Amino acid sequence: MSDPIALISNIRSDDEASYLSALASAMPAENVVLFRQMSAEQRARVQIAIVANPDPANVAALPNLVWVQSLWAGVEQLVTRLVANGPPIVRMIDPEMSRTMAEAVLAWTYYLQRDMPAYLRQQRQGLWHQYAYRKPSTLTVGILGLGSLGTAAAVRLGEAGFKVAGWSRSAKRLPGVQTFSNDDGLITMLRMSDIVVCLVPLTAQTHGLLHAALLSVMKPGAGLINFARGPVVVTDDLLAALDCGHLSHAVLDVFDEEPLAPDARLWQHPQVSVLPHISAPTDFETAAAVIAANVGAYRANGALPCSVDLVLGY
Amino acid sequence: MSDPIALISNIRSDDEASYLSALASAMPAENVVLFRQMSAEQRARVQIAIVANPDPANVAALPNLVWVQSLWAGVEQLVTRLVANGPPIVRMIDPEMSRTMAEAVLAWTYYLQRDMPAYLRQQRQGLWHQYAYRKPSTLTVGILGLGSLGTAAAVRLGEAGFKVAGWSRSAKRLPGVQTFSNDDGLITMLRMSDIVVCLVPLTAQTHGLLHAALLSVMKPGAGLINFARGPVVVTDDLLAALDCGHLSHAVLDVFDEEPLAPDARLWQHPQVSVLPHISAPTDFETAAAVIAANVGAYRANGALPCSVDLVLGY
Repeated sequence: MSDPIALISNIRSDDEASYLSALASAMPAENVVLFRQMSAEQRARVQIAIVANPDPANVAALPNLVWVQSLWAGVEQLVTRLVANGPPIVRMIDPEMSRTMAEAVLAWTYYLQRDMPAYLRQQRQGLWHQYAYRKPSTLTVGILGLGSLGTAAAVRLGEAGFKVAGWSRSAKRLPGVQTFSNDDGLITMLRMSDIVVCLVPLTAQTHGLLHAALLSVMKPGAGLINFARGPVVVTDDLLAALDCGHLSHAVLDVFDEEPLAPDARLWQHPQVSVLPHISAPTDFETAAAVIAANVGAYRANGALPCSVDLVLGY
Repeated sequence: MSDPIALISNIRSDDEASYLSALASAMPAENVVLFRQMSAEQRARVQIAIVANPDPANVAALPNLVWVQSLWAGVEQLVTRLVANGPPIVRMIDPEMSRTMAEAVLAWTYYLQRDMPAYLRQQRQGLWHQYAYRKPSTLTVGILGLGSLGTAAAVRLGEAGFKVAGWSRSAKRLPGVQTFSNDDGLITMLRMSDIVVCLVPLTAQTHGLLHAALLSVMKPGAGLINFARGPVVVTDDLLAALDCGHLSHAVLDVFDEEPLAPDARLWQHPQVSVLPHISAPTDFETAAAVIAANVGAYRANGALPCSVDLVLGY
C-alpha cells in the first residue's frame, strides 16, 4: 500500500465521514487517514493532503508534503494561509459541481425572471396582481467570472433562451455569449444586464468588486445573484442600492461571515433572498472520483495536477 | 375585404386592445371588429368569431357563424356554454405558449427541488440550515396530462435531467418518459412521483380528479404544482394532505374562483405558494399568428382547423 494520504478538515463530522467513505471507495489502493488520527511516523510519510478548511498548523506538520488537494472550488483561505513556501494547491474542478452550479444559476434566474419574490410578497398581502411576462429572449443575464462554473452557467442560460453576457479578467470567447474583459468591459456588461450573476473567485482583485459606483451603473430594476463569495459584493452598498429602489432584488448564497449572524439586516430585508450557502454543494462521489484521477496520475508518473496560481489567487 | 371577424371578449381592456392590434397586424387583409361595435348588418355577415370569455348571448347573436376561435387553450367554459347546436370551437394551440408553460413547469419544479419555500421560511426566522441537495436524476416528476402543454413540459424536464413520468386519458408514448393511462396507471404514477404537475384540461372526467384518496397515494413529502384549472384539485382535500404533513408543498396558479377570494385560506397557508394565473400567459403576437394561419386556410379553401371534441371536452 502507498504512503498514507492525510485528510485535514474542519467541517461537519457527517460530511467528513461521507468524504472519507467516498475517497476509500474511489481509491481502494490508497490509505486515506484523518490527520488527527495519524501517528507521527505516518505524518512523516504523507505526500498528499486532502483539505477542507484545514488548520494551517496541521498542514505545516507534514514535513514531506508534495501537494494539497482542496475539496472545494474556492481556495481563497488556503491561498492566504498556506502561501509562504507552501506546496502547490489543487482546486476542486468537478464537472458535476459545474452542472449543479449552472442549475442553481438557472433556477434562481427563473426565480427573478418569473417575479417569484414579488408574488410571494403579494401572497402575504392577499393581493392578486399579474406582472407582465418577460420572455428570456428579451432579458440579458450578465455573468461575472467565466471559469469552469461561469462557463457552465452561461451555456445553460443560453440553452434556456436568455441573452448571455460574460465578463472575465482575461479576454475569453464563448459561442453565443457576448464577452467582456477589463474595467470598461465590466461597466458595459453591468449596464446591459437585467440580472447579474457573480461567479468570480475571491482574490485581492475581486474583493469588494461590486461597490456603490459599479452597482450604480447597473440597469434600474436589475437583480443580483451572488453565488461566489460574500466579500465580492459590498453588502452596505448593495443594501443602499436596494433601499433606494435602483436594484429590485438580490439572491445571496454567500456572506462576509458564514453562517450569517442572527442579527444581520439581510435576513429581514424584503428585497433579499438569503440562502445558506447551498447553490452548489460538493458531491462526495464525483469529488472523490476527481481526486482519485489526480492521485492516480501522481502515483503513476509523479505528475502534479494543474495548481492554483498564488499570485492570481485561483 | 372579407366579411368581418368578430372579437368577443370579456377581458381587461388593455389586453383586448393588444389582441386587436396584434390580429390587425397578423391579418392585414381581414377586418377584425369588436362585437359590441358591430352594426346588425355586420353581425349578420360574421363567419368567424374570436373569443375570450365571451357572453354566450353575443355568440348566439351571430346568425351565420361558422366557427369559433378561442384565444385560450382552456375551453371548458366555452364547451359548457356554447355546446347546444353550437359551431365548432378551435382551441388556441400556440407553440410559444407550450414553450412558456414548459418553462414555468421547470421554474417551479426547481423551486420545489431546490427547497426554496423552506429557505424562505427559514429566512423569516433567521435560521441557517442546509437541506441535502437532491439531484434531478434522483427525482421523478409526474405530469398529469400529455397534450401539447404536458408534452412540452415533459421534454423540458427530461432535458434538465429529471426522471419524467406522464399520465394521459388515452395511452401515449413519449421518448424518455414513462407513460401511463387509465386508473391503475394514475395510481402508479402518483405513487412514484416526487413532484406532480397538473396539466390536464378541465372536463367532466378531470373535475375533482385529485381528491383525498388519490392525494393519499402520493409519495410522503411530495410536492404538487397545479398549472391546469382549479377544480382539477379538490382544495379542501389538498389542504388536509398538507396539514397532516403527507404532502410538503403546493404551487397553485389556478383556483376554483379567480381572482382568489381575499379571505381564502390558501393565501396564508405556509405550505402553499399562490400565483395569480401567470404560468403561461398568451403571447399576443404569436397567438395572432396562429389565428391568422387558421383564418387563412379557411378563407383559401373553407378548411376548418382541428376543433374541440365536445364529448371529451377538449
